[in-house]
Amino acid sequence: MLENSPTQTAAAWLGAFAKALDTSDISAATDLFLDDCYWRDLLAFTWNIKTSEGRDAIRDMLAATLAQTAPANWRLSGEAKAKGGLVEAWFTFETAAGRGEGCLRLVDGKCRTLFTVLSDLRGFEEKSGENRPLGVRHKADRARETWSEAKRRREEELGHAEQPYCVVIGGGQGGIALGARLKQLGVPTVVLEKNARAGDSWRNRYRSLVLHDPVWYDHLPYIPFPAHWPVFTPKDKMGGWLEMYARVMELDYWTGSTCAEASYDADEKVWTVEVDRNGERVTLKPKQLVFATGAYGPPRMIPLPGADSFPGEILHSSQYADGRRFHRKKVAVIGAASSGHDVSVDLWESGADVTMIQRSPTTVVKSDTLMELAFEIYSEGAMARGITTEKADLIVASTPFALMPESQKALYDRIRKRDADFYEQLAASGFALDFGEDETGLMMKAYRTGSGYYIDVGASDLIIDGQIKVRSGVSIKSLTPAGILFDDGSEMAADAIVACTGYQSMHETVAQLVSREMADKVGPCWGLGSDVRGDPGPWQGEPRNMWKPTAQEALWFHGGNLALSRFYSKYVALQIKARMEGIATPVYGVPANAGG
Amino acid sequence: MLENSPTQTAAAWLGAFAKALDTSDISAATDLFLDDCYWRDLLAFTWNIKTSEGRDAIRDMLAATLAQTAPANWRLSGEAKAKGGLVEAWFTFETAAGRGEGCLRLVDGKCRTLFTVLSDLRGFEEKSGENRPLGVRHKADRARETWSEAKRRREEELGHAEQPYCVVIGGGQGGIALGARLKQLGVPTVVLEKNARAGDSWRNRYRSLVLHDPVWYDHLPYIPFPAHWPVFTPKDKMGGWLEMYARVMELDYWTGSTCAEASYDADEKVWTVEVDRNGERVTLKPKQLVFATGAYGPPRMIPLPGADSFPGEILHSSQYADGRRFHRKKVAVIGAASSGHDVSVDLWESGADVTMIQRSPTTVVKSDTLMELAFEIYSEGAMARGITTEKADLIVASTPFALMPESQKALYDRIRKRDADFYEQLAASGFALDFGEDETGLMMKAYRTGSGYYIDVGASDLIIDGQIKVRSGVSIKSLTPAGILFDDGSEMAADAIVACTGYQSMHETVAQLVSREMADKVGPCWGLGSDVRGDPGPWQGEPRNMWKPTAQEALWFHGGNLALSRFYSKYVALQIKARMEGIATPVYGVPANAGG
Repeated sequence: MLENSPTQTAAAWLGAFAKALDTSDISAATDLFLDDCYWRDLLAFTWNIKTSEGRDAIRDMLAATLAQTAPANWRLSGEAKAKGGLVEAWFTFETAAGRGEGCLRLVDGKCRTLFTVLSDLRGFEEKSGENRPLGVRHKADRARETWSEAKRRREEELGHAEQPYCVVIGGGQGGIALGARLKQLGVPTVVLEKNARAGDSWRNRYRSLVLHDPVWYDHLPYIPFPAHWPVFTPKDKMGGWLEMYARVMELDYWTGSTCAEASYDADEKVWTVEVDRNGERVTLKPKQLVFATGAYGPPRMIPLPGADSFPGEILHSSQYADGRRFHRKKVAVIGAASSGHDVSVDLWESGADVTMIQRSPTTVVKSDTLMELAFEIYSEGAMARGITTEKADLIVASTPFALMPESQKALYDRIRKRDADFYEQLAASGFALDFGEDETGLMMKAYRTGSGYYIDVGASDLIIDGQIKVRSGVSIKSLTPAGILFDDGSEMAADAIVACTGYQSMHETVAQLVSREMADKVGPCWGLGSDVRGDPGPWQGEPRNMWKPTAQEALWFHGGNLALSRFYSKYVALQIKARMEGIATPVYGVPANAGG
Repeated sequence: MLENSPTQTAAAWLGAFAKALDTSDISAATDLFLDDCYWRDLLAFTWNIKTSEGRDAIRDMLAATLAQTAPANWRLSGEAKAKGGLVEAWFTFETAAGRGEGCLRLVDGKCRTLFTVLSDLRGFEEKSGENRPLGVRHKADRARETWSEAKRRREEELGHAEQPYCVVIGGGQGGIALGARLKQLGVPTVVLEKNARAGDSWRNRYRSLVLHDPVWYDHLPYIPFPAHWPVFTPKDKMGGWLEMYARVMELDYWTGSTCAEASYDADEKVWTVEVDRNGERVTLKPKQLVFATGAYGPPRMIPLPGADSFPGEILHSSQYADGRRFHRKKVAVIGAASSGHDVSVDLWESGADVTMIQRSPTTVVKSDTLMELAFEIYSEGAMARGITTEKADLIVASTPFALMPESQKALYDRIRKRDADFYEQLAASGFALDFGEDETGLMMKAYRTGSGYYIDVGASDLIIDGQIKVRSGVSIKSLTPAGILFDDGSEMAADAIVACTGYQSMHETVAQLVSREMADKVGPCWGLGSDVRGDPGPWQGEPRNMWKPTAQEALWFHGGNLALSRFYSKYVALQIKARMEGIATPVYGVPANAGG
């Protein structure tokens, strides 16, 4: 009975922390943390997405941000839980700008990790639930403008008589999710989509494509997939959902619209965005510009010496849509990550003779295994325990990136044991496997380099069975009139080559549309600076440039898979809304080019 | 401490009831009911929608249905509640066909009302939640048919190479909700919509139309409106939602398609439905035919002697879409129910000089009042208390129609007191008010006659202010070259006439499309047989012919507002699915023409 309950322990800590902050006693606040401590903040203190690692970093951060943040009303949400030696509790608080929430994890009464996040802006909350709009004035009115008349007028005026506050380049899941958040916050926004219809970014891909992540992980904000939605969404069904979503959420979504060029006037603080809208030139003048052009930038082609002499077709995976024209053809697929596997299967299903050329080892995990061991927090079972998608997102976000490798390594130790037979067979086929330089597996590879992994939904069995052949550990010396010559002197006949060689960094799109200079100023996107191959240091603690202020004022990057698009769109939208409303947003952690 | 808790009381009753049914002791079962008792059953016992009133009726029903129903496993769901002298408890049970749920209400330990409903069919449950489809086989497959290929093939074959099991005539909210339910149950169904796009049944109506019911009452099944959806949905926004819904739910929804005629082959047990699909004649051969052509049948025009001499335009409210061409015109609106009010406001907003001709008194309730007093169970507050839309629907359905007048009268006593000033002013304007022959108000009028009421969203103030003029208590003797001559000898100048005179019964659509004979065999739809004007007896206890077997095998009526379409679509779909799967569905309560 002398021992405190987890809730008492958490309440005592939170009380002491609140008191230290109330009295601006930063030393007292940092004394509440362990030596090995982390504070991940999304906007609440830093107006940035920033993890402060260690007491010194936390002290510096608080010294810079505490006065303007004016945090108050810290309150536990529900009961704390003890897990191993850890006490975990969720809480809410308020700041000068709005409401926040967060999670604390204590060891021996001191804080190991703190997570704080700004949930909304005071006075600019979304109108939802019992604050939803009425939809009609219950009074006859000769000047009444109906919903559809108002919509038509806005569509006619936006970009012409009235300028949007924000332009989002790219209308895939990233642009659509962000467009929806901005709409709900009342930020006039135009989303530019190069294709003819919303959802075409999915429809235009190869015919057998099905999402590799399960439905619980893929919800968009505001309108979740219904309960009968399949676990793995086929690409055209996803396309249909996105098209419906953009329409029902009433986005100002310009199809057939590409950004030809953009420039920023630093004095006027306004962008000039030249748009080709179905052949018509429109000049937009937004205050904020978001690049949401996909998880990555332009397609990356590798040099293929002798390509001129090769008589067959050479295409990048982004151009690959239908394997049926390769029936009975010999096709070399360069690359052994997700798209390399998917394209190989599609080719095999189309009756092609497929060889995958693997240039470096791949992390492979069976989809079922991942579902069971890694996605439990996004599942029907989690929903039944009250862990909504929104809650699961916060739980995931509450762990600082620096601590992920530890738990991911433990996860992959389990996975490798569980699927040992599978890995043995795959290795025996000549396929080069790895689990990352530090054995941390797929998700760390995704955050660090965005490449080199595959969630197995069937290709690996074809490789094991020899139906898809693999050439591993060789480099291409040149193409020849007959096919491919490798640097070990061996040759391979090929009628066509599909380069599944990935994409460049998103900041290359800035170089294309704005200038090389601005792209270099901003620096690359993604990567954590983990110092593994493909992710050079220095250590960043967060993905570079994503969803947060960049070295270029009023320029933002948004994207990622459906889950990242869903979660981080909220915080990109809050940052843009705050700027639109003139709320002070002093950014802590000067966003300089993060190198890489 | 001697008194039993409500849960103990309910458990004791349910235990005794279960035991009586288990042992086929029908007398023991009926002895558990009060003299004044009601058992409302949706399919579980009767394969009908049927209220048995009094112990004799319950005895007869059980004698006919108990053996084949084989109910078992009766279990309370959660705690029972005591309200006044009533103990209320919810429960689940099973039958030979599937799972059921229900509600019992006890007075002094005996049953006043029992409600039982079939929730699903064993072996044919909807694939949802953790039983949702996988969406892909995680195995490469050269014979793979993708989602979009399968969809295209089905669309090409359905109605040609493959006949639908069910055809639904009418693609408004009723047909769409039912189509979605049938889709989820795997019943091949074609929904015929005469307009070019799903949702046009809303879009084509007058410009200022906004739903009079609040959003919480209007959800469709499977995909609820999102939390930011306005309380009152503008008609075009509703149209957009329905269009999205039909597409995302993957209905086989044929736009531009009208049923030209239909006939039933009683020997072959198959319908022949001649369809004009965008000018192409298609013959469908379904086993089941559903009329979902709107809450009512064809427009009802009243005789207007001298119409030939009247030079102006005469139109029915169903043809009225835009008042702007009546600017500065004198317009007579015949009828003072919902459409009469809405059209009058639209005309007034368009600058017309409007006179409403009221032929009989109208029940008027202010929308705000109704929201607060009558719709509480469908509200943000109810949701917060765990009363989902599905639960609210069951709560509403658990009260037999025979007991509704009592509670409705009490409700309208409150409303008339609360809004006494409003009603006084409205009466002073010459508008004839009533609350139904037995003072039971709007909802009873809706169920009994489907006419004679208005939820005030602004028109009444215009009437009070004299902006919309009213001629009440007069009949039209004839039209004249100048306007209207009334039977009291007075005349009124008019440039145009809009007849807001309602609709005929849905069974008149059967007369149009099948035969007079079949329409007469089936008899009218709606009405309870309450013996008030417009709803002649005999007493039915349930709406006539709606959502349940009719006197014509394989012919069904479905419809009503969004809430009724949502709720009863489930039970229409279960009845059709059971027939498709060959499950025995002996209907209790021979569906003869219910007169009227």
